[in-house]
Amino acid sequence: MGEYFDKILIANRGEIAVRIIRTAKELGIKTVAVYSEADENSLHVKLADEKVFIGPSEPRESYLNMEKIIRAASSSGAEAIHPGYGFLSQNPVFAEKVKEAGLTWIGPTPDVLKLAGDKISSRRFFAKAGIPIVPGTLDPVGLEEAEAKAEEIGYPVVVKPSGGGGGIGMFVAFSPEELKEKIAKASRLAKAYFARTEVYLEKYFPRAKHIEVQILGDMHGKVIHLFERECSVQRRFQKVIEEAPSPSITSEEREKLLTLAVKAAQSCNYVNAGTFEFLFDLNERRFYLLEVNTRIQVEHPVTEMITGVDIVEQQLAIASGEHLPSSLSDPSFRGHAIEARIYAEDPASDFAPSPGSITRLSLPAGPWIRVDSGVYEGFRVPEFYDSLLMKVIAWGHDRESATRRLKRALGELEIRGLKTNRLFLIRILEDEDFVKGSYTTQILEKRELFKNLEEPVTTTMIQERAETKAEQTSKSISYWRLLARAHV
Amino acid sequence: MGEYFDKILIANRGEIAVRIIRTAKELGIKTVAVYSEADENSLHVKLADEKVFIGPSEPRESYLNMEKIIRAASSSGAEAIHPGYGFLSQNPVFAEKVKEAGLTWIGPTPDVLKLAGDKISSRRFFAKAGIPIVPGTLDPVGLEEAEAKAEEIGYPVVVKPSGGGGGIGMFVAFSPEELKEKIAKASRLAKAYFARTEVYLEKYFPRAKHIEVQILGDMHGKVIHLFERECSVQRRFQKVIEEAPSPSITSEEREKLLTLAVKAAQSCNYVNAGTFEFLFDLNERRFYLLEVNTRIQVEHPVTEMITGVDIVEQQLAIASGEHLPSSLSDPSFRGHAIEARIYAEDPASDFAPSPGSITRLSLPAGPWIRVDSGVYEGFRVPEFYDSLLMKVIAWGHDRESATRRLKRALGELEIRGLKTNRLFLIRILEDEDFVKGSYTTQILEKRELFKNLEEPVTTTMIQERAETKAEQTSKSISYWRLLARAHV
Repeated sequence: MGEYFDKILIANRGEIAVRIIRTAKELGIKTVAVYSEADENSLHVKLADEKVFIGPSEPRESYLNMEKIIRAASSSGAEAIHPGYGFLSQNPVFAEKVKEAGLTWIGPTPDVLKLAGDKISSRRFFAKAGIPIVPGTLDPVGLEEAEAKAEEIGYPVVVKPSGGGGGIGMFVAFSPEELKEKIAKASRLAKAYFARTEVYLEKYFPRAKHIEVQILGDMHGKVIHLFERECSVQRRFQKVIEEAPSPSITSEEREKLLTLAVKAAQSCNYVNAGTFEFLFDLNERRFYLLEVNTRIQVEHPVTEMITGVDIVEQQLAIASGEHLPSSLSDPSFRGHAIEARIYAEDPASDFAPSPGSITRLSLPAGPWIRVDSGVYEGFRVPEFYDSLLMKVIAWGHDRESATRRLKRALGELEIRGLKTNRLFLIRILEDEDFVKGSYTTQILEKRELFKNLEEPVTTTMIQERAETKAEQTSKSISYWRLLARAHV
Repeated sequence: MGEYFDKILIANRGEIAVRIIRTAKELGIKTVAVYSEADENSLHVKLADEKVFIGPSEPRESYLNMEKIIRAASSSGAEAIHPGYGFLSQNPVFAEKVKEAGLTWIGPTPDVLKLAGDKISSRRFFAKAGIPIVPGTLDPVGLEEAEAKAEEIGYPVVVKPSGGGGGIGMFVAFSPEELKEKIAKASRLAKAYFARTEVYLEKYFPRAKHIEVQILGDMHGKVIHLFERECSVQRRFQKVIEEAPSPSITSEEREKLLTLAVKAAQSCNYVNAGTFEFLFDLNERRFYLLEVNTRIQVEHPVTEMITGVDIVEQQLAIASGEHLPSSLSDPSFRGHAIEARIYAEDPASDFAPSPGSITRLSLPAGPWIRVDSGVYEGFRVPEFYDSLLMKVIAWGHDRESATRRLKRALGELEIRGLKTNRLFLIRILEDEDFVKGSYTTQILEKRELFKNLEEPVTTTMIQERAETKAEQTSKSISYWRLLARAHV
């Protein structure tokens, strides 16, 4: 009945589950939602054709429980599993189990998931394939080697856990004294979050842009790009505002970047949708591969709005064995798109999460405004998961018109009952550096106290803070933060 | 402060007033809303920067009262008036008065408004300019001439009031016997609605498409097109679903149509936004100019979605004296867009209007869905005005994907508290002829009782019916219908 599949299970929740359901519905594909106790009344459950309860609110008992999800898929007669982002989406063991259960995995091969999941191995792999990576170590380092390497590449440097991603356990060191302290901290957090202590070193570029390329690969060896996104507005390694195309590069630099990304994707036989994240050093104007995100990205809508390509549909088509359409061999884009992430958080209290009930919700609408929301009026936002409520995306014929349209839309958005970062986002859009497009990944840092620059990333910091006021926040708040890391 | 203007007054209400406010806001232009008693809590009043009360709910006492509106503009310091569609938007006397008051009129010149408002004069004018018009009379006809003309061009024929538009007072006659009766009916209604009895005759094409061209002209003699829209899904001359581009014509036919439309617009020195409506006879595959709509059209969003051009912004730019941007000299379009009009009406009761309070409203969202709404949850839809609540517009890379996306969006839309045509619209989108694109303007007729084919247009019929159950409906319901005519 449906195109590509008759029925799929969506192993996720929130706005991305809703996003996937919408495309599936348009294609005549039946959808199965899975849900935890806290999500009984969630929007994705209401919109899906079927629902399967998979356990307690704690992610480990439900959305991270591989067996329960595979059982839900088999018992409901789903043919395939779409993992969304976060949760199990980048877990090679899960992808393997899905296949073993005779189901189709809507995502890259387990081999690629494994490669991309180990930051050190993937640095080594892509360096060998001729892709420029950020200068640093190709092996896990102890303190002594780290000090030698840091001298070699020059301070500041970033210490990163090998098994990590999304900002958790990442620290910047400006001197040999700091390096010692930061390595200890990073190892400790790496152990807590990723069950392995290895860390590695990368050069830190203070004047840098975060630019990523959307890749699609089919099962027949064809790899294409859908241009780039810039995600330089970050709150300590967490993306807040994303746009496409990048306002920071010339056409020649774009050509170079896209060629690099396609080459990198081809080198690992990339299948399905993926994002190749690059750091763009503004001083020398060079690209360095940062990491590969082996799933659909939170910010995929900006690419959709400039290219007209439904990325979720392409994921389904690829997973069903289809060839990439020939029209995508030479893709084109039109205008500019910007996305703002609306989080249930309090920017005035250092972005502390603010779960609660939405007592009033009025979404922006009108010309060239897209809203991807996972909530509705009357919904109680659970404290167990990522605090992303929705994304508001605006398109314009140029960056200026997209910006003013997004600002208008954020002005219309009304959410009552919990705190959000809505006004904070408007302030960013009004920021002089943002308007000029000349901002770097430091744009939000410069507005905070200087000492915060050297502090651990927000996710961790908030988690630590939250734990000290355990009477206010559930023990499960750590999941909220842990999972947030995967949504960058 | 603002682009083009600092402050404008919007002489309208409902979704189109909201639409105009949104673009103004994006451009930094302050907006003044005018409102009647019934509209005190309307969305356009809430969104505007300032509001001016202009009187009782009856349109003649408020939205059709030229003096009150001009006074509101002058007292609030607005520099220009945007009339939207309907109400005074095509009234040359009003346009003249606006100019006399030292304000800018955001629309065509009074001369063009006058020409387009008189159907017989404009038939004569465009015939002389070499534009093919529907075969029929170039002068008002009495019964005898009408009979002779009908014999000459062949039955069936349409009888139309010279001062009319939008379907009011239009009747199809299939035989000489019917002709006599229909002319009498048409004259009577023409007198009631337009205060003049003249009618004229046109050939009636049973297998026809309604295809219209969006035109923009600046004050410096430049005229461009933004491609065509097809509006063949009509409920007895009232548009219900519109799309762009037309699925019915070849590229060569499109070229021909667009050239014709630009030529017609140039022949009358057209300034600002306008729509040149054509009838496309499927038998001989020829275009005939039907009429010129000298204002923004309800269905303008489908053009915006395929071209990326903000038509309201262009209207403001043109009215301020700007040149049309050079990028529009060779416009391009991408994909396909379809709009569905959501009316507060009961399709099961012959589309009787259904004013009332909206007790629950959940708008569709997600990829490539645009909602232009004039209402919100808790709003009481007044019975005095057009029953259009909102428009839902979907874009897709082709017609099929746009259709299934719109169907998905209409499935998500939830409106409680009053009756709407939501399910009726879904049924049209599922209709075999609609899916094939092979439908004609008769698509909705074929699903109703045969005798209805020959009945007066819906607007009138519903009005007559409404008057017989006066205890249920306000006396003012006639305004609802009267104004509806201008919104085609």
